[in-house]
Amino acid sequence: MTENTLKPYVIGLDLGGTNSVFGIVDARGEIKATTAIKTGGYDKVDDYVKASVEALQPIIETVGGIEKIKAMGIGAPNGNFYTGAIEFAPNLAWAHDGVVPLADMFSKALGIPVALTNDANAAALGEMTYGAARGMKNFIDITLGTGVGSGIVINGQMLYGSDGFAGELGHVIMVPGEAGRVCGCGRRGCLETYCSATGVARTAREFLKTSDEPSLLREMDPEKITSYDVSVAASKGDALAKRIYDFTGKMLGEACANFAAFSAPEAFVFFGGLTKAGDLLMKPLKEAYDKNVLKIYKGKAKFLISTLDGSSAAVLGASAVAWDL
Amino acid sequence: MTENTLKPYVIGLDLGGTNSVFGIVDARGEIKATTAIKTGGYDKVDDYVKASVEALQPIIETVGGIEKIKAMGIGAPNGNFYTGAIEFAPNLAWAHDGVVPLADMFSKALGIPVALTNDANAAALGEMTYGAARGMKNFIDITLGTGVGSGIVINGQMLYGSDGFAGELGHVIMVPGEAGRVCGCGRRGCLETYCSATGVARTAREFLKTSDEPSLLREMDPEKITSYDVSVAASKGDALAKRIYDFTGKMLGEACANFAAFSAPEAFVFFGGLTKAGDLLMKPLKEAYDKNVLKIYKGKAKFLISTLDGSSAAVLGASAVAWDL
Repeated sequence: MTENTLKPYVIGLDLGGTNSVFGIVDARGEIKATTAIKTGGYDKVDDYVKASVEALQPIIETVGGIEKIKAMGIGAPNGNFYTGAIEFAPNLAWAHDGVVPLADMFSKALGIPVALTNDANAAALGEMTYGAARGMKNFIDITLGTGVGSGIVINGQMLYGSDGFAGELGHVIMVPGEAGRVCGCGRRGCLETYCSATGVARTAREFLKTSDEPSLLREMDPEKITSYDVSVAASKGDALAKRIYDFTGKMLGEACANFAAFSAPEAFVFFGGLTKAGDLLMKPLKEAYDKNVLKIYKGKAKFLISTLDGSSAAVLGASAVAWDL
Repeated sequence: MTENTLKPYVIGLDLGGTNSVFGIVDARGEIKATTAIKTGGYDKVDDYVKASVEALQPIIETVGGIEKIKAMGIGAPNGNFYTGAIEFAPNLAWAHDGVVPLADMFSKALGIPVALTNDANAAALGEMTYGAARGMKNFIDITLGTGVGSGIVINGQMLYGSDGFAGELGHVIMVPGEAGRVCGCGRRGCLETYCSATGVARTAREFLKTSDEPSLLREMDPEKITSYDVSVAASKGDALAKRIYDFTGKMLGEACANFAAFSAPEAFVFFGGLTKAGDLLMKPLKEAYDKNVLKIYKGKAKFLISTLDGSSAAVLGASAVAWDL
C-alpha cells in the first residue's frame, strides 16, 4: 500500500478575514467533511489555532482519525509558502503588524505536516489538482474577484520566486502615469483597478459620467452598481453595459498577451465572480489577446473558466497545497 | 572519478547569422580552444554540419579527443530547447522557411548529447553557470543589443514554457495603441523598440526632431547616430543625450517593476552593448524600478551587469546549455 492509500486525506483551510473554513478532502477533490470558525473571533493567534483544532477534531474522527490524514494546506492572505508564515495581513487581527508562523503552529498542534500559501496560489494549485488545469504543467490562474489575484504554474511547480511572493499579476501596471486609476497598493494603473469586480463598477461609473447614452444602469445609484448589475444589463442588450465588459475584456486580453511573453503558458484559467459574465467578458478578452500576442504564441493558449464549485473552491485550493508535502 | 572529471569539457556553439563560433569550455568557464566557420557559407544544413565537425576535429584533439567531452550546447536564433530544432530563422539560409533538427544532427555527427536554445536563454545560462548569476536560482537576464532578449531562470531552471518559446520580454508592450513605435515583430510599442541599441538611436532622432535644444548629436547625420554616440555625448555632459538615457532607463525600470510581479527575481542581470553606458542607463533604471515596483518587492532585487567577457559570452552561454545533459 502506498502512503496515499494509508493516508488518503488532506485538510484544507481557507483562511479569510471573516471566516475560516476547513475541509477534509480526498485525492479526487471530494470534500468528506467541513467545519468553520469565525476568524475575527480571536485576537491572539494561539486562541485561533486552539479553536481551529477543537473544531477539526470531530470531522477528523469522521474519516477515521488523524492517522488517515497526510497533511494540511492553508490558503491565506499574505501567506508565504517558503516560511509558512502570514506576513502583515491587514485584515487579520493577529497578523496585521507581524509575521505569524501559522504552518508551524498547526503542525505542532495536529502532528502532521502543514504548508501555507496565499489564496491566489492556492486557487491555482486547486485547479491543477482537481480542476480545469488538471494534467497541465504550464498555466496561469487568474482570480477575478474584489481584486485580481494570480497563481503561475511552471514545469508543474507553483512559481513562488526568490521571496515567496511571485505572481502578483493584478499589480502589473496597465495604464502608466497619472492617467492610471489609483490602486489600493498605493500606486496607479494596476490591472486590478480595471479588471476586478470593483474595477468593472468603477468603469461603469466612469462611462455613465462621461456620456449621456441611455442605459439601464442610470436607474441605479452609481455608488451601488456592481459588476453583476453590469452583466445583467448587458445580457438585456444594454449597449453601455456591453461596452463596459468590452473595455474590461480588452484590457485583460492585452495583459494576458504580455503574460504569454513571460511564461508561454498552455492555458489561462479564470476564476472568481467576474467569470459569471461568461462570453460578455471572454469574447473581447480572447479577441484582444489574439490581436496583441506575439506571432509565435498565436493560437496556442487555451482560455478556460474554473471548473471548481465556487463555494468549495477555496477549501479545495488550500487542500491542494498539502498533497506535495 | 565522477563523470565530470572523466569528461571535463563541453562544446559551445554560438550560431549567428554571419559567423558560427565554437569553443571547448571547462566547468569554470575557461575556454580551452576555439574555432569558427562562416554560417552564411552553406546553403544546406548537411554541408553546414559537415564543415562544423571538420573545423571542430583539431580543437577536440587538443583537449584529448571526443571522449573528454560531455556534451555540446548551441545558442541559435529561434532555437527551441524542447525540440532541439531551429524554427523559421529569417537570417539562416537553411532554416528560414522550415524546422531544422540541428541538435540531433550534431549529436549523430559527433556521438555526444547536444542541446540547443535561443541566444538570450543561452546568455542567461552562461550567467548562471559562470557569471554574475552564479549560485542564483531566480533571476532575469536581459540582453540589450540590437534587440532586447531575455532569459528567465526560476527555481534554478531555465523557463521554456509550454512550447519552448517563453521569455520574450523584449516584446512586452510598453506603449499600447497607435502611439507605440513600430516593432520588427509586426506590432507596436514593444520594449525593444525603446530599450535596445537601435531604440536608443530612434529616441535620439525623435528628441533631436522635436526640440531645438543644442546638442553634440546635432553635428552628426541623424540616420547614423548609434547608442554609443549618445553615451559619448552624455558622458561629455550633453543634456539632450543624458535625457535620452534617462528616458531609456526609466522605461526599462518600469518594465522590470512589472517583471518583478511575475517571478519576484533575486536579480536582474543586464548584458549587451547598451550596458557599456553604465550609470547613464543604470541610475534612471534603478530609480524608476524603485518608484514603480510593488511595495512587497521593494529593495529586494539586485541590478547587475554581466561579468562575462563580451567577445566570449555567447560561446560560454551556448556551452552552459550542455552541462545539464
